[in-house]
Amino acid sequence: MAKKIILDCDPGHDDAIAMLLAHGNPDIELVAVTTVVGNQTLEKVTRNALSVARIAGITGVPFAAGCPRPLVRAIETAPDIHGETGLDGPVLPEPTLELDRRHAVDLIIDTVMSHEPGEITIVPTAGLTNIALAARKEPRIVERVREVVLMGGGYHEGNWSAVAEFNIIIDPEAAHIVFNESWPVTMVGLDLTHQALATPEVAEKIAAVGTKPAKFVGELLDFFGATYKEAQGFEHPPVHDPCAVAYVIDPSVMTVRKAPVDVELTGGLTLGMTVTDFRAPAPADCHTQVAVELDRERFWDLVVDALERIGDVEA
Amino acid sequence: MAKKIILDCDPGHDDAIAMLLAHGNPDIELVAVTTVVGNQTLEKVTRNALSVARIAGITGVPFAAGCPRPLVRAIETAPDIHGETGLDGPVLPEPTLELDRRHAVDLIIDTVMSHEPGEITIVPTAGLTNIALAARKEPRIVERVREVVLMGGGYHEGNWSAVAEFNIIIDPEAAHIVFNESWPVTMVGLDLTHQALATPEVAEKIAAVGTKPAKFVGELLDFFGATYKEAQGFEHPPVHDPCAVAYVIDPSVMTVRKAPVDVELTGGLTLGMTVTDFRAPAPADCHTQVAVELDRERFWDLVVDALERIGDVEA
Amino acid sequence: MAKKIILDCDPGHDDAIAMLLAHGNPDIELVAVTTVVGNQTLEKVTRNALSVARIAGITGVPFAAGCPRPLVRAIETAPDIHGETGLDGPVLPEPTLELDRRHAVDLIIDTVMSHEPGEITIVPTAGLTNIALAARKEPRIVERVREVVLMGGGYHEGNWSAVAEFNIIIDPEAAHIVFNESWPVTMVGLDLTHQALATPEVAEKIAAVGTKPAKFVGELLDFFGATYKEAQGFEHPPVHDPCAVAYVIDPSVMTVRKAPVDVELTGGLTLGMTVTDFRAPAPADCHTQVAVELDRERFWDLVVDALERIGDVEA
Amino acid sequence: MAKKIILDCDPGHDDAIAMLLAHGNPDIELVAVTTVVGNQTLEKVTRNALSVARIAGITGVPFAAGCPRPLVRAIETAPDIHGETGLDGPVLPEPTLELDRRHAVDLIIDTVMSHEPGEITIVPTAGLTNIALAARKEPRIVERVREVVLMGGGYHEGNWSAVAEFNIIIDPEAAHIVFNESWPVTMVGLDLTHQALATPEVAEKIAAVGTKPAKFVGELLDFFGATYKEAQGFEHPPVHDPCAVAYVIDPSVMTVRKAPVDVELTGGLTLGMTVTDFRAPAPADCHTQVAVELDRERFWDLVVDALERIGDVEA
Repeated sequence: MAKKIILDCDPGHDDAIAMLLAHGNPDIELVAVTTVVGNQTLEKVTRNALSVARIAGITGVPFAAGCPRPLVRAIETAPDIHGETGLDGPVLPEPTLELDRRHAVDLIIDTVMSHEPGEITIVPTAGLTNIALAARKEPRIVERVREVVLMGGGYHEGNWSAVAEFNIIIDPEAAHIVFNESWPVTMVGLDLTHQALATPEVAEKIAAVGTKPAKFVGELLDFFGATYKEAQGFEHPPVHDPCAVAYVIDPSVMTVRKAPVDVELTGGLTLGMTVTDFRAPAPADCHTQVAVELDRERFWDLVVDALERIGDVEA
Repeated sequence: MAKKIILDCDPGHDDAIAMLLAHGNPDIELVAVTTVVGNQTLEKVTRNALSVARIAGITGVPFAAGCPRPLVRAIETAPDIHGETGLDGPVLPEPTLELDRRHAVDLIIDTVMSHEPGEITIVPTAGLTNIALAARKEPRIVERVREVVLMGGGYHEGNWSAVAEFNIIIDPEAAHIVFNESWPVTMVGLDLTHQALATPEVAEKIAAVGTKPAKFVGELLDFFGATYKEAQGFEHPPVHDPCAVAYVIDPSVMTVRKAPVDVELTGGLTLGMTVTDFRAPAPADCHTQVAVELDRERFWDLVVDALERIGDVEA
Repeated sequence: MAKKIILDCDPGHDDAIAMLLAHGNPDIELVAVTTVVGNQTLEKVTRNALSVARIAGITGVPFAAGCPRPLVRAIETAPDIHGETGLDGPVLPEPTLELDRRHAVDLIIDTVMSHEPGEITIVPTAGLTNIALAARKEPRIVERVREVVLMGGGYHEGNWSAVAEFNIIIDPEAAHIVFNESWPVTMVGLDLTHQALATPEVAEKIAAVGTKPAKFVGELLDFFGATYKEAQGFEHPPVHDPCAVAYVIDPSVMTVRKAPVDVELTGGLTLGMTVTDFRAPAPADCHTQVAVELDRERFWDLVVDALERIGDVEA
Repeated sequence: MAKKIILDCDPGHDDAIAMLLAHGNPDIELVAVTTVVGNQTLEKVTRNALSVARIAGITGVPFAAGCPRPLVRAIETAPDIHGETGLDGPVLPEPTLELDRRHAVDLIIDTVMSHEPGEITIVPTAGLTNIALAARKEPRIVERVREVVLMGGGYHEGNWSAVAEFNIIIDPEAAHIVFNESWPVTMVGLDLTHQALATPEVAEKIAAVGTKPAKFVGELLDFFGATYKEAQGFEHPPVHDPCAVAYVIDPSVMTVRKAPVDVELTGGLTLGMTVTDFRAPAPADCHTQVAVELDRERFWDLVVDALERIGDVEA
């Protein structure tokens, strides 16, 4: 049976690919898409999400907008990576889907509470503001959610600072809430996603699919590759967000390691670090694990396969 | 025209008196009562609020329960001041009102959005978790609210630490959110409320009202007086929360001073301090002010008057 | 018998007046003067100290230079208050005294260790870097010193931030060391020194002394008055540092209150705050006290008297 | 020409081995040994240093005691690793050397200033209190020292917390001072020293030397191995401190990587972390580098060789 996921995202180039992967893969059922400020403003990422839905041919799935700013900190976006629109590069179609009238936080809560316990997996690929607010507003979702598989953080790598990653540092208090609730959390962080580089070989395979959505992904990677080279010195861009979706599809696509993870809220140099304790075997009740090593080939095969299944969409 | 207020509270002895003052005073219209973890657990303070409603004869006002825990920190309650029930001392009647089915955060949002801009005043007398979540979930309430008049903090006084007050330190991140939004905030802090001591003369005047609600207040003050003496060395207990309500009724019952206020989130000694900057005249756009000096006599007259107007309630 | 003091300073207008007061008053014996970075660089304040010694006619007292920078933080000076030289305003004579060859930290240690226990009072009127280093290098001075009477901090007032004072915030770690050692510490902070305003009446009395040192003080106050008005909005300048010396001369010139004081090292808004706990009577072993109220008239009489005793110095 | 080093240590089992390595290796000239609180109290580690000197036959080298406590924090020692004496296990001989009368800080300063610029290497294998105080008391040593090669910290490993190492976390302010001065700093941290495990093969080679000092090292490793297994779950004990000495002897015994390193002073989870920024190639003026990979065999060969050269000491 397909796993039901709520994708909480801020598209964002890699969020868009995550959405395509989730939609195209048969082992995932996308039951809701929620947006949150992050790579760009809430307004922009929400419009992007709806445009990507049209490109991907996603229908019948509620999309809801969430928080326009982090819990405590000022808004920080990433235009140097994702451009002014949050999805610079391709020409985006006008959205055709209408937004759900509910707030993302309520859509998350309603979705979790209306499904059976253990049925819904939450996949955040953005700052954790929506998820944290949902957990605070309706604490019962915590026991009801199957697991949280998030893209964010890193145990030995950082990008927005020496030791912190963007999705966590933009709302560290929200991340603290999510990591400290009792649900199972899989952190697919930079240690893993920096292995998911879109090399020319990958780009070729995607181009070979030959559909409009695949062409769209190609354009995303072109822009994303250029900004990642310019801003962070990467030869090929790390495609973070689909890694979290890939783990839900097939956990064996990466190795993971159980370890306690907590989020630093007060460090002068370490704010937003996902502090991971590897000193000893994780205690039996450890509810957090971190992704360690990616099977690159199988990962990209999943992406290509999803694009092939999506085929050519009449938008 | 009476001022419409949402009372967000955690009864709590002084919260109960604040509720009575708001209900009995003709210049206040209580449009909603919301509860939040604080002096005791959410479950206990919510039941207390409903019991006090019965004692006071409050009907036709929605009561809603809010957050069972602070945003980021662990729960900290105050049993040494308010006892195990949160309202130890009097025997409480079974509640007769039913809770509104909405979450307090949604009741706050709905109430503010369904009234005219500038119509609703929010009066928090507890930790600021509900108010912060409401502002984050529906940012438009911030411009729509008339003002926030809160009991909490202190510019030169602390109780839970040398420089921090209970309502702020139990959820400093929520307080940071509330003080940093653009709405007008009046901080009725310990500097003011430590002047609102329930002396024997005050107790006598209240006893002289001779009604059941007045007797209830008398019993509250007996218990509260004993714990404040034991826990904090006060000769007579400071009755904090009604001071915020009194300011809404008649701002001239206390002097206030405009000054920038912010909340310390990282201090080892100063966590939760409401840092107030008196170094220079407040800037023209300063949206925060702090209560400085109380007209004790007029304050207690307001309380006694409210009790007289409530009269003897058939519960 | 005159009290023996080590004056640790960073002249600095008010430091210069403190030096004159200590030299001119018969109840004080100046046994060493040490300098430290603060109002200006170590080089400048050290030269200033020697120039003031010539103006005051101080001879036979060792002067030693100490630390050129704070323990952990970057150097922060106060040119907006004290000018580019640290003692802008008067024309300073070339120094005639030679510096002691020892480091200030060693001069402090040697002085304390070569006197009887309880004989030496340390009077810091600058950042506490030298004193902290001395206590760490030779821990035995802590029990041997009579007391530390320092100008710095404030329990309810700040100048360099809303709640922190210059001498503390420029080296909070050093201040933390000094306040947490077991010696008696009297904090003569802004709460007290903002009462020591050099009004026109004060300036007249000083002018009436008619000597060169008095004329020098007059020029100091002129410059200091102008910068304090410009930088902090004071009508008349607060003359901080001599207050600490005055307390050593005659503790009854001000009221003090015993209370625990500690220094905030991590606050985002409160770094360097001297957190003072007034919530309860100070514990019996409390070794810190704070100055509360100044007898202005007697204070200024001490200053004028010292100038009269110094008389006209052949420089 | 042999490299002249000051060894600043807190023996400590691995400090003792570091001392033997430095003494026995012909490419090192031990010009001073200084002690500081750390693995045990200053008194204990100083006595241990002198006893080890006797065991190793070290004469003609000044030994001086330094700081009995960290700059700002309370004393924290490591009895669970090093026992109550700081060097539990072997029976220690009475010291025969007398301590230098100078404070360690002054011995360090005098030694550096009396040698040519670039002649002295400082090798701290303990908390950095002495080194930090020396740099603050005599800033000119910073340019004069050849380099600082320290055992402490870790870029991806911690022992006293998830991300901090003992020598750094016991005095993070001192470490902050040392890492932020402009001298070249090589951090030989846990990432490296956790490769220097004293396996049974190593123990055998040492035993095969057959001398008293070798037997002493064997006893050290027996005790150290047991406590490391008990306290931190290591199969074989990591012998940290000699690694720093080995780097001075022959930098090619390990690979190093240039990267900016700073010390976290305020983190709730990360206090004392040596935050290392690997995100981009180190800037040209980067003065810090971190040890990455150890050539285990050559390292242990150096230790064995030193023991052989020391031979049997008439103590």
